[in-house]
Amino acid sequence: MNKEQQLEIKRHSLAHILATAVLEMFPEAKFGVGPNIENGFYYDFDLPRTLIPEDLPILEKKMKEIIKKNLQFEKQVVNHDKAIELYEKAGQDYKVEILKDEAKDEEVSLYKTGEFVDLCKGPHLDSTGEIDFTSFKLTKIAGAYWRGDEKNKMLQRIYGIAFNNKKELKEYLKRIEEAAKRDHRKLGKELDLFCFSDLVGPGLPLFAPKGVVIIDELRKHIEKVCAGYGFQKVMTPHLAKIDLYKLSGHADKFGKELFHVSSEQKHDFVMKPVQCPHQTQIYASKQRSYRDLPIRYMESEKQYRAEKSGEVGGLNRVYAITVEDGHSFCRVEQVKEEVKNMVEIIKDFYSAIGLWGNHWVSLSVRDYSHPEKYIGESQDWDKCEKMLEDVSKEMKLDAKKIEGEAALYGPKLDFMFRDSMGKEIQIPTVQLDFATPKRFNLVYVNEKGKDEFVVMVHRAILGSYERFLALLIEHFAGAFPLWLSPVQVKILPVSSEKHIDYAKKVNSLLLENNIRSEIDDSNESIGKKIRDAEKQKIPYMLVVGEKEAENNSVAVRLRGSRDIEDMGIEEFVERIREEVKNRS
Amino acid sequence: MNKEQQLEIKRHSLAHILATAVLEMFPEAKFGVGPNIENGFYYDFDLPRTLIPEDLPILEKKMKEIIKKNLQFEKQVVNHDKAIELYEKAGQDYKVEILKDEAKDEEVSLYKTGEFVDLCKGPHLDSTGEIDFTSFKLTKIAGAYWRGDEKNKMLQRIYGIAFNNKKELKEYLKRIEEAAKRDHRKLGKELDLFCFSDLVGPGLPLFAPKGVVIIDELRKHIEKVCAGYGFQKVMTPHLAKIDLYKLSGHADKFGKELFHVSSEQKHDFVMKPVQCPHQTQIYASKQRSYRDLPIRYMESEKQYRAEKSGEVGGLNRVYAITVEDGHSFCRVEQVKEEVKNMVEIIKDFYSAIGLWGNHWVSLSVRDYSHPEKYIGESQDWDKCEKMLEDVSKEMKLDAKKIEGEAALYGPKLDFMFRDSMGKEIQIPTVQLDFATPKRFNLVYVNEKGKDEFVVMVHRAILGSYERFLALLIEHFAGAFPLWLSPVQVKILPVSSEKHIDYAKKVNSLLLENNIRSEIDDSNESIGKKIRDAEKQKIPYMLVVGEKEAENNSVAVRLRGSRDIEDMGIEEFVERIREEVKNRS
Repeated sequence: MNKEQQLEIKRHSLAHILATAVLEMFPEAKFGVGPNIENGFYYDFDLPRTLIPEDLPILEKKMKEIIKKNLQFEKQVVNHDKAIELYEKAGQDYKVEILKDEAKDEEVSLYKTGEFVDLCKGPHLDSTGEIDFTSFKLTKIAGAYWRGDEKNKMLQRIYGIAFNNKKELKEYLKRIEEAAKRDHRKLGKELDLFCFSDLVGPGLPLFAPKGVVIIDELRKHIEKVCAGYGFQKVMTPHLAKIDLYKLSGHADKFGKELFHVSSEQKHDFVMKPVQCPHQTQIYASKQRSYRDLPIRYMESEKQYRAEKSGEVGGLNRVYAITVEDGHSFCRVEQVKEEVKNMVEIIKDFYSAIGLWGNHWVSLSVRDYSHPEKYIGESQDWDKCEKMLEDVSKEMKLDAKKIEGEAALYGPKLDFMFRDSMGKEIQIPTVQLDFATPKRFNLVYVNEKGKDEFVVMVHRAILGSYERFLALLIEHFAGAFPLWLSPVQVKILPVSSEKHIDYAKKVNSLLLENNIRSEIDDSNESIGKKIRDAEKQKIPYMLVVGEKEAENNSVAVRLRGSRDIEDMGIEEFVERIREEVKNRS
Repeated sequence: MNKEQQLEIKRHSLAHILATAVLEMFPEAKFGVGPNIENGFYYDFDLPRTLIPEDLPILEKKMKEIIKKNLQFEKQVVNHDKAIELYEKAGQDYKVEILKDEAKDEEVSLYKTGEFVDLCKGPHLDSTGEIDFTSFKLTKIAGAYWRGDEKNKMLQRIYGIAFNNKKELKEYLKRIEEAAKRDHRKLGKELDLFCFSDLVGPGLPLFAPKGVVIIDELRKHIEKVCAGYGFQKVMTPHLAKIDLYKLSGHADKFGKELFHVSSEQKHDFVMKPVQCPHQTQIYASKQRSYRDLPIRYMESEKQYRAEKSGEVGGLNRVYAITVEDGHSFCRVEQVKEEVKNMVEIIKDFYSAIGLWGNHWVSLSVRDYSHPEKYIGESQDWDKCEKMLEDVSKEMKLDAKKIEGEAALYGPKLDFMFRDSMGKEIQIPTVQLDFATPKRFNLVYVNEKGKDEFVVMVHRAILGSYERFLALLIEHFAGAFPLWLSPVQVKILPVSSEKHIDYAKKVNSLLLENNIRSEIDDSNESIGKKIRDAEKQKIPYMLVVGEKEAENNSVAVRLRGSRDIEDMGIEEFVERIREEVKNRS
């Protein structure tokens, strides 16, 4: 048994110990289920009163006592009817319900800890004493419908976390605390990046000016890099007839997640759940020759998906998803070059964000034992998988070949990064697609005057701006690199009365040089002004007073530092321009 | 009677003459109605066979004969019953239907021309001979439902045009011919700016790369100019709960034109028909102080209106309307400065397009005799109308005060331009709005710590990109000024084999300098290459051959000119950069 499995058993055993403690506190408690989960465990209870946060330390204390008693986890095997009889007698309705749903002829295993007997497949520790009682903690109380169905009664769920030892527990708690500080919903509000409105509705973020600066900088950077590789911007609407998605296959794929659009005048549209089909229609709008290929389109537009209303929240789950999407329409022989260019774009972009290097690449190919699961000719697949392998070698991507991970319509390269909190992020991808061109009859006239199908190469760089912004906020804890900072420089006049003219002069010069600068002209002390700017995570603070005005200089203070450096204005401008240019 | 009224009578009389001619050709003809319209007239007929284009010259000839005969327009007044009896006898069902819908006790006037007797209020000419028969022309045949209702029978409509004399007629025909050449739907396809797809649906244009270049250049120019006046970009989704529009008043205003959005998961949204309400929600997302004002938002986003499906077409009537919209939230005392800035922005933009100067301004104020028709305090209106008057004076706008043209919620300045075809265009506007802030409780904390309502100032510059692009295409006949041209320079190697390397060198240099350049590397003759570039209306053609490669020069040919000017490459780059910068 490996360490991870041992920890899972420990967590599951703690769930039973929690239930034992709850039974001591509420003899009339009815029990739902209590599994181990990531980082810990929970148990659902039907109790005579609502739990309050103050109950948790009491229960924790009881659990520790149970551990000290070193009680056995006694396994008992009974037949199905006997088990039902036992739980009916004990008034444990939920356990009875579970049993009645199971096959009647099977034997049932029960685990007893102190007074508590659970219906449970195990395995468990031998006894409670095996647990280090400094390695777990009860964390919260939540409501949970019995069996996840809102028609059922709502039970009370107690969550706990548990690790191998006290040190690991502490580390985890610290990580959680850090993550809470970095939470994009919290920082998004504090830094005034985006908001929600009850009148507009949930899942529909409104981006305030500072949030748009970041989104715009990301978009402009991608557009510029991609334009260098021949990508051209297109613009498509958010609606289409359902016919478009019936043909593309997305009507089936998204089904319930499609938003339907109607009017009193009998219009009937759906909102686009993806960008690709619209872009195919621009390709298809005129005859294309082999001389025109590759044709490359890109677009940053909103797509809409009807997520379950209970599941939307923050920027990670929204109805309105602004996706940066791009496609190359090319010949089979051009695929390799196209893929290489797209990988270069991904490399450029993730280098600018500082994530390149901390990543691995998956070469996601067919499940060779089930070729029938995929669309397209076998020889095209062979050719294209080989191309991706070559790209991986030539570009030293060191891609791991993962069988069965290809898309329905072609093999792909997937890039996996880790953010500063260690969380894995899978966003950029380059996918080959033989199927869509056939569905939409996307052809070009070859050298011999005959129609041939193009290959579509899909590429995603940052995915959706909403999720990417959430990621950036949490990765940088709101302290964005200079080129992405909504306000790059804050000018802090020592006295807002005496030094305002010089502050304005400096500000104008910065704005003329396309540096996003602001003056703090409040009547606060210089100390307060610095604290405010730090709170807003502004990269550069310029303190200006008597001396600076005389010398045409600025006192530069970096975000997070106490050092101050005197500098001529022009020199400062040059430094900022250089840093922005290098995205450092 | 003025000239215009005389011409209307003549057109109406021609409709009767047309009917008389049709009656000669089809004695069993039944008559609908036949009014004068802009530029001419029409008449609707129920005929025993479908008309063909060849019928028009025959009918025209008959009309000329009737004119030559100098027949009287004989007026006859009869009572209602008598008129019905008369038309029933003649089998003129449509006339009978009209009569039966009218008041019974009124007398009815009839006009007789030859054999044709029409139910008609008049007036008419005295006799057909008064018409110069070189001054009119029958132009087309179309289907038209009786009374415009698709449940009724479809009649055949013959259209004619008529002017004071032959010269005016000819001028009109020439204008029409020119307009057809400039038609944005035709040029949009030829220049590959946008397209439609049957799978996506009508009213939903897809913008191809070249169309997006123009839209992007317009957007970037507006954003840059507006940023200079403190406007900040925001970004809002296309959906909202209907509650937002109930509060804003747009739910009432748009009613049937709202697109409703639903899903199998019971979502219930509408698509935004305007941008303002979403923007108010960003303002309202946090507390604002008088020190923060004015706050200015701008956004270029799509809004959606459920136009009648029969009415969408080209870029002028679409479901998806990309609107550039901006608002300033300010104090009453700041309104004047805000308006001035907005007028400066409009002036800058329309100067760049070359339309400023050929315009007039309306100062649209209340209908003073009906103050109850407007929202807001009378003293606020007085103050703001006065401000707009002052702006007009100070900025020498020479605005005409037009009573009764104010919006419900405040007075405004409207700018009227004329395009190169003489068509009036009313797009830019600056509107004061006291009502929306009250509906949405948009307040700021004043110097005394008390809440006060802001004033919203709405401004439109180019309106929607779709309509504005249509306007630009037709105004410039596709020959866009350099800064808006999708391809600014086409490099034409004399021989695509021998001179391609030099062409590529020139092209790289231009691209590096952000000049939109392309090479024609086809195997066509240089003459054909020039003709193709002319057809694509590309501002600059660079012919490069032996001599140019040797001298590091280019032979520059301007769009629409036969002259060629030799120039060093660097010199050419400088010239283009200067021209783009000056938008000349």
